[in-house]
Amino acid sequence: MSKTIYIAGLGLIGGSLALAIRKAHPTYRILGYNRPEKSQQIARERGMVNDLTDDFASFAPLADIIILAVPIKQTILFLKELAQLDLKKGVIITDVGSTKQEIVAVAEVCFANREIDFIGGHPMAGSHKSGAIAADVSLFENAYYIFTPTQFTQERALTSLKDLFKGTGARYIEVAADEHDRVTSQISHFPHILATSLMLQTGDYAESHEHTKYFTAGGFRDMTRIAESEPDLWTSILLSNSRAVLDRIEEFKERLDEVAQLIFQKNEPAIWKFFNQGRAMRQAMEIHKKGGVDSFYDLFVEVPDEEDVVLKILELLRGISLVNLHINEENREDSHGVLQLTFKNAQDLATAEVIIKNNTDYHITIT
Amino acid sequence: MSKTIYIAGLGLIGGSLALAIRKAHPTYRILGYNRPEKSQQIARERGMVNDLTDDFASFAPLADIIILAVPIKQTILFLKELAQLDLKKGVIITDVGSTKQEIVAVAEVCFANREIDFIGGHPMAGSHKSGAIAADVSLFENAYYIFTPTQFTQERALTSLKDLFKGTGARYIEVAADEHDRVTSQISHFPHILATSLMLQTGDYAESHEHTKYFTAGGFRDMTRIAESEPDLWTSILLSNSRAVLDRIEEFKERLDEVAQLIFQKNEPAIWKFFNQGRAMRQAMEIHKKGGVDSFYDLFVEVPDEEDVVLKILELLRGISLVNLHINEENREDSHGVLQLTFKNAQDLATAEVIIKNNTDYHITIT
Repeated sequence: MSKTIYIAGLGLIGGSLALAIRKAHPTYRILGYNRPEKSQQIARERGMVNDLTDDFASFAPLADIIILAVPIKQTILFLKELAQLDLKKGVIITDVGSTKQEIVAVAEVCFANREIDFIGGHPMAGSHKSGAIAADVSLFENAYYIFTPTQFTQERALTSLKDLFKGTGARYIEVAADEHDRVTSQISHFPHILATSLMLQTGDYAESHEHTKYFTAGGFRDMTRIAESEPDLWTSILLSNSRAVLDRIEEFKERLDEVAQLIFQKNEPAIWKFFNQGRAMRQAMEIHKKGGVDSFYDLFVEVPDEEDVVLKILELLRGISLVNLHINEENREDSHGVLQLTFKNAQDLATAEVIIKNNTDYHITIT
Repeated sequence: MSKTIYIAGLGLIGGSLALAIRKAHPTYRILGYNRPEKSQQIARERGMVNDLTDDFASFAPLADIIILAVPIKQTILFLKELAQLDLKKGVIITDVGSTKQEIVAVAEVCFANREIDFIGGHPMAGSHKSGAIAADVSLFENAYYIFTPTQFTQERALTSLKDLFKGTGARYIEVAADEHDRVTSQISHFPHILATSLMLQTGDYAESHEHTKYFTAGGFRDMTRIAESEPDLWTSILLSNSRAVLDRIEEFKERLDEVAQLIFQKNEPAIWKFFNQGRAMRQAMEIHKKGGVDSFYDLFVEVPDEEDVVLKILELLRGISLVNLHINEENREDSHGVLQLTFKNAQDLATAEVIIKNNTDYHITIT
């Protein structure tokens, strides 16, 4: 049965969802809302939608499923606007916001006692890229797609959304909205505050200590990378998840006090334990394998330390798109290196694995 | 004039310095001290030294220049041991420790009123690799090599060291020991505390919030990467630079209080400004270009979005060692991608640039 899907916001997330819906449900009619700017034109050119509007209300009554893929504040405004409209009976509404509690709370008020099912959603992928131009049918492949159902959620609504988004290749997971916001405050929202604060502290320090800017190296670069994130997005996230973020800040300050105390006391065994536990925890959580946003498909090939071995392998892989290639010389004691090949999707990786296995005797590992 | 150089510690740093001295001064006699373990054998095999001992005191009286390339604590013990020995008149002693104030202070006491010149040194390179096996003659190429002379430093001693290490290709810079320690506390020592604290906080959080470990993504990974650093090294650094590190912690807590206040007040413009300033400062400091530890030589080639264009370029570059290759698709609006090629040294980069220019009409950028 064909459905009409209405996607508000055809940027990176909305655009990628549109492409994934097209792929799995070619007969569905996809309507789009976007402000009349570049993304609209790109959405048209890339065939994301059957029809486009810049008047949000106009297409809403036509939809079986409405996806709000706009910033948090706009999502809340649209929810309130939808509450005033005469929507199809049984319409399902979802969003893609980075925080969930506030949006879910607003939706429950807006749609109370109406035959409208709202389920909060958060596809956990993103990119440093943005806009419809960056939309990619495989953006969410293997990423977590979080739903935050409540006691009011109808099972059939959740089933519909899972079917709708099956073309993303994402892994569905259900979490309560408040728990979602607490966990993301710890692993994402609060770390953004840390990165920006460290950057500001260092920038200020550099004004009175001229060598500061020369001595920064790889560690500092990595720790402050996310300080270059989009201020609009992160302001809205902090405002929408203030309680959890404030808890993380308080708790972190206590940790800083504790380690400061150890340093002040010159407590060598305790400082060593501090660093050693951090290392052990990170290794145990296998953080190094987590791309999340940037997760791709890696193949590791142990290659002999010979000239042009890389070229030889690329010749074998002719026609397969590589995202990245890295030569790791850590294990050169036995004069072997490790060649890391990164592919866009699982299929390319599988093909490459077979080709290398059939044409060389190199040892291959996949993580 | 040939000199006798004594290097204590033939790990990554000492071994790389040995190779660089060999390169620039093939007639110098290089003696080495190392504990009788793996690195000794590798140092022999790689021809780093003319002779090796595992009794530190034995070779010290033979040396014109002594380089202590051992951990901070051991450096201090060796300085005290050297003070008891009958060294060559006019011997120059230097070290490679990550903190400088404590070591310089000990040396000044040890060598007061003796014809011994001590100059603190800190070659600002390192690697996730370690040991003699990872030693590399180009480890310090283009990196900063910091000297921390004092009022007692003889100009001829500094000149000798600069000549000795010229094969490293490093950029020399002179900074007071206390300023060195303050600046590195800001851009390196304190960030390590942040990374480890964030990792510990998150690890603890994961114990009571099961989704934590699934939701970590690229930002968290990068922010905690240095939490996997060597606990021994970082314990000794914190202990040796406790005052500056404690100042950074206190000041950072005040920053966290300020941003917490803004979040509590839901002060949207001020939060936006917080993020925007962090972004602006990072962009202004050009942090993204700073490899420091991992700095290599990058060539960016704008390539058409055609199949096997990467293979075509690698065929042109046959014989040149690549460290990394990355296909950046950010700029695909005009159906061009950017191929980032990373080389080990400036010469390979220059050769590659000429080859690509002569054989293609692709646009090339070097940063």
